[in-house]
Amino acid sequence: MQRGCIGLSNLYVGLVHYPVYNKRGRVVCTAVTNLDIHDIARCARTFGVRVAYFINPLDSQRELANRIILHWTRGPGAYHNPARKRALDRVQVRATLKEVIQEISEAHSLPVRTVATDATWQGETVSYPEMRELLCDRSQPYLLVFGTGWGLSREVLEGSDYILTPIAGVLNYNHLSVRSAVAIILDRLMENRQRGGSREWIPSN
Amino acid sequence: MQRGCIGLSNLYVGLVHYPVYNKRGRVVCTAVTNLDIHDIARCARTFGVRVAYFINPLDSQRELANRIILHWTRGPGAYHNPARKRALDRVQVRATLKEVIQEISEAHSLPVRTVATDATWQGETVSYPEMRELLCDRSQPYLLVFGTGWGLSREVLEGSDYILTPIAGVLNYNHLSVRSAVAIILDRLMENRQRGGSREWIPSN
Repeated sequence: MQRGCIGLSNLYVGLVHYPVYNKRGRVVCTAVTNLDIHDIARCARTFGVRVAYFINPLDSQRELANRIILHWTRGPGAYHNPARKRALDRVQVRATLKEVIQEISEAHSLPVRTVATDATWQGETVSYPEMRELLCDRSQPYLLVFGTGWGLSREVLEGSDYILTPIAGVLNYNHLSVRSAVAIILDRLMENRQRGGSREWIPSN
Repeated sequence: MQRGCIGLSNLYVGLVHYPVYNKRGRVVCTAVTNLDIHDIARCARTFGVRVAYFINPLDSQRELANRIILHWTRGPGAYHNPARKRALDRVQVRATLKEVIQEISEAHSLPVRTVATDATWQGETVSYPEMRELLCDRSQPYLLVFGTGWGLSREVLEGSDYILTPIAGVLNYNHLSVRSAVAIILDRLMENRQRGGSREWIPSN
């Protein structure tokens, strides 16, 4: 197992718009949010994530997402803001989680391991140090799965290889935006803690 | 000095819309962004920050921000989404950073210490462990200052008591959204690292 490794180049992120819950606990498909694309792409780029997938089964929603991405990668946005282009260059849009899993697995000739996230999961979870340790095996790809709306359906959670320990704040408030959750989780997995101001990767043990 | 402390109740956050730089390095006033209010409020609530201040000298911008906040705290939004109300309940809108500094200092009968943030600052900075240590003195209020646009003006940075070490990713990409930066920095300062899945506050040393 490789230690002292930099970046998260064997890590993929997937933002799922279906199947997720709405506030009434029904499984729905949510709409693409412009700032999700920007914020998650910028985090992915910052922490060296390989690809950020936006997953939505509706053609019209995928078209919208692709139009936004094209504006910043090949349209006027690329000239206006080259840093944004560098971020959005690593965003892909797909219809289903299954398709994403298959695509990554084929690229690595190895089944990708899925790591679901949830704000409230009470069952068995993988901790951040454990996940950092797993990510140090660079031959193994991992897909970190985030849900929009009121979170990933139970079916997705239970079908995942791992479920990451929820982010705990104080006062039992667990309503971060998915944009904030992605930022915090990638930072924790990167474990670039800058202890004492240094910038080195710090192994988990 | 108190150790093993929970939450960040002596910490305030300020999001500055003026004076900040635009992409050409000119000092400008940026517009209020709806999702900044939501995401930063939700992070503030999650990590127990006392108040999140949105700072904009333009009357029309403060009115807009207050309309958004009122919708979710006393309007239909409060009924529609009580969790969002709990977050936006700790948001305040003010015209200037000076006014915010004065207000906090008066409330604590002690000058608030300001901690500016910047994506690229190369001068002397305070590290995350040092800042966590400082925050454990609960009698001393701190104001964490974030800039919109291309970041806080040099005048604000140099006028601050501390400047926090920038978030370093990989590949020299330092273009996180301010929403992501707030999320990551509060998580680091909270240092609720959930090592091994536990939820205890872990002192910095």
